[in-house]
Order: sequence, then C-alpha cells, then structure tokens
Amino acid sequence: MKAIVFDVFGTVVDWRSSLIAQFAELARETGQAIPGETLADEWRGHYAPSMDRVRHGEQPWTVLDDLHRQSLDRLLEAHGLDFDEAQRQRINRFWHRLEPWPDSVAGLTALRRHYTVGSLTNGNLSLMLDVARHAELPWNVLFCADLFRHYKPDREVYLGACDLLGLPPGDVMLCAAHNSDLSAAQALGLKTAFIPRPHEYGPRQTRDLHAEGDWDYVAKDILDLAIRLRSGDSA
Amino acid sequence: MKAIVFDVFGTVVDWRSSLIAQFAELARETGQAIPGETLADEWRGHYAPSMDRVRHGEQPWTVLDDLHRQSLDRLLEAHGLDFDEAQRQRINRFWHRLEPWPDSVAGLTALRRHYTVGSLTNGNLSLMLDVARHAELPWNVLFCADLFRHYKPDREVYLGACDLLGLPPGDVMLCAAHNSDLSAAQALGLKTAFIPRPHEYGPRQTRDLHAEGDWDYVAKDILDLAIRLRSGDSA
Repeated sequence: MKAIVFDVFGTVVDWRSSLIAQFAELARETGQAIPGETLADEWRGHYAPSMDRVRHGEQPWTVLDDLHRQSLDRLLEAHGLDFDEAQRQRINRFWHRLEPWPDSVAGLTALRRHYTVGSLTNGNLSLMLDVARHAELPWNVLFCADLFRHYKPDREVYLGACDLLGLPPGDVMLCAAHNSDLSAAQALGLKTAFIPRPHEYGPRQTRDLHAEGDWDYVAKDILDLAIRLRSGDSA
Repeated sequence: MKAIVFDVFGTVVDWRSSLIAQFAELARETGQAIPGETLADEWRGHYAPSMDRVRHGEQPWTVLDDLHRQSLDRLLEAHGLDFDEAQRQRINRFWHRLEPWPDSVAGLTALRRHYTVGSLTNGNLSLMLDVARHAELPWNVLFCADLFRHYKPDREVYLGACDLLGLPPGDVMLCAAHNSDLSAAQALGLKTAFIPRPHEYGPRQTRDLHAEGDWDYVAKDILDLAIRLRSGDSA
C-alpha cells in the first residue's frame, strides 16, 4: 500500500461544530437570532440529495460550493431568514473554514512520512485549498470531485485518483468515517480503513457508529491508524 | 493576485545536473562507461518533440513518464548502450529524483505564506509527487498535464488550472524560466513572472538568458520574486 486518500467532511474536519460556531459568531455580530444547530443539520441534509441530482443527470455538473449556495438559499427561505447577498456569500464560505478533529493533523503528519496522503473528497479544489490552509492539513495531493466532474460514490472518482497516482487500486487505501463510502471503494479494489466519528452529526448520531463491513483497518482515529499501520496490525 | 503556479523542470528543479549525477552513479555501480552529459542533453532534446506528437494528435494521450521511456529507448539504441529492462526502468525514474535550485524551497516557502503555490507542469501527477517529496517542495496544489490530458502550451492547461482554482486568469501568475511558456500564459490573461536559469541547459546555454516579453515581474530567482512581491516592486 502506497497511498492513503481521505474523505474530508466528517472524517478529517468537524463540519458541524465549525458551522455552528460560525453561525454563533454571525449572530453576535448582527444581533440577529440564528438557529445555528438547525441550519447546520438541515444544510448538511441537502448535501447528498443535491449531489444526487448532478449524479443522476437532473442538473449539469455543478461544484459543491455552488450546490451549497443553492441549498442555503432554499434553507433561508424556509426559515424566513433575511440575509443579503454579501451575508449569503459569507455564510457559504463557512465551509471553507472548518476545524480539524483533534487527531487529524498529527495523524496525517505521521502517515505522510511513509505514504502519499491525499484528499478524496466531493468538495471542489478551491474549497479544499481553503480548508487545508485553515486547518493546516499536510496533504501531498488534493483529489477533488471537480477533477473528475463526478461525485462519490461514482466509480470515476475512486478509479480516477488511482489512475493519477499511477497505482493499481490495491495500492491505494480510502480512509473514511462513512461505511457507504468504504463500500464503494472496496467494490473497486481499493483498501479500506474505517474510523468512527460518533459525534459528526451531533450528540444524537445514529449512523456510522461502528464498522459495518469487512474493512482492512478499523482504527479509533487517524493517529491511531498511523500507529496500527506501523505496527503491522490490522482490523 | 492570489495564486502563483510554477513551471517545474528547469524553473524549480535542475533536471540536467540531477540526471548527470545519477548517470555517474550508475556508471560507478555498473562499471560501464556512460556519456551522462550527452544522454541528459539528448534525452531533454526529445522532450518537446515527443509532447508535440501528442499535442498534434499523432499519438494518443501519453503521460510524460511514458514519453520519457520511449525516447530513452531510442536514445540508448542510437548510442549502442545495452541496458536491461530493470536498468531502463531505473534510469527512467531519474526524472523522479531531481534536485531543486538553491533558492527554490526557500522561495516557495516564503510565497506560500501569502499565495496559493502550485505546479503547472507537463509532468504527470505521480512523477510530480516523487519530485515534490525528493526536493521537499512545499506545494499547496499540483497541476499536472494528466489532469487536463493536454500539454503546455495548450490553452487547456493554463485555463484548466485557473478554473480549478476558481480564479479569473488575472488572479493567477505563471512563474517560469522559459519565455515561450510565459507568452502562452500571457495571451490567455494570466500574470507572468520570468526568472532566468542561465545554466539549465549547461554552460553553453544560448536561450532564455533574458526576459523577452513584457512580463509582470522579472526576478533573479524564486526567493527574489517573493521579496519583490512583498515590497510591491514590479518588473
């Protein structure tokens, strides 16, 4: 195994707490009451359906920044929240300023000593550059949906990354907090590593609490994955 | 200006001295007489013509690693040099172990404090990952020909990078040691910075010794470019 690619939203960065904190900051600055938790959860609720519209040809190729903006507009209307264009642009960029989980930077740093580490994300490249800078993520390479003009779980994303790496799928491992992402990767011959992020969706999270497939590695977090890989330990 | 993308071979790394040193090492190990300087120069001589065959549709899309191998085989035959398959594979990977010019790492490190810094290279991504690791180049992002399936000076490469950066061409600057590369970028609206590498082609280099266009910046080297950009100085 030569390269490890990572799902980013939820696996490497804590999008929910980061969005809520930025909504709270905006509320303090504007004096407006903003239901930050509800907005964060509902906004993320639009995520998969919005990409599915693109995946199924109901909407032409659209980068995630623009899908986020479309769902934000719908969300604000549903909640009767009145934000002007500048505020909407600012809110949409909340996704560019996400905090890493506590182990992420140390884990990636340890892994890149021995492996190529990259993203394998549905975020667009310009979004991922900002996330990397803000969270100080030490990537070797960024694989983003707009390189392939496909969204995971489309096979073009997983196999496209392997092809650009010049590696057979069996030399590439996907690390993700989501069983469905790993399932798609495994079916195409990639190695898989599951790490649970039991609070990604908040305190009442019900899914992806445990490994649900025969993954090559199951680790506590990214740093623990680095330790297991060095010790030759597996799932 | 928000992002600076770099030509790599010749601009950031010293391919010629690096190839010659590796040929010398191979000669010591095998006891075989190897005309390292001649091979380096002639191998590089095949570079543009081999990409032009792809650019003009005479050969289907082929990554640079494979073009290098095709021209290496021709070169060895022309010189009557007998290397087996394993040796040829090793020699082809000389391009993966290139040394940076003395200012490159310091210059890129200074620039990435204020700009996104990326490659904009005809090398393939897997090749560029090895070069980055070997030379310890602190890229934020790798733009490589195989992302676009086009070689510079095709417009798809320059404009494809701007598109993925989410920036208009005027917010992106190409830094290169080659006037022709800058000319293609400028025609598409990118900013330009020329740095001379007067020994890239050896002691008798005759081209690209001076700026030959109206470039936005002309600097001594990459570190000097970083200093000029901070001081607001221009060409």
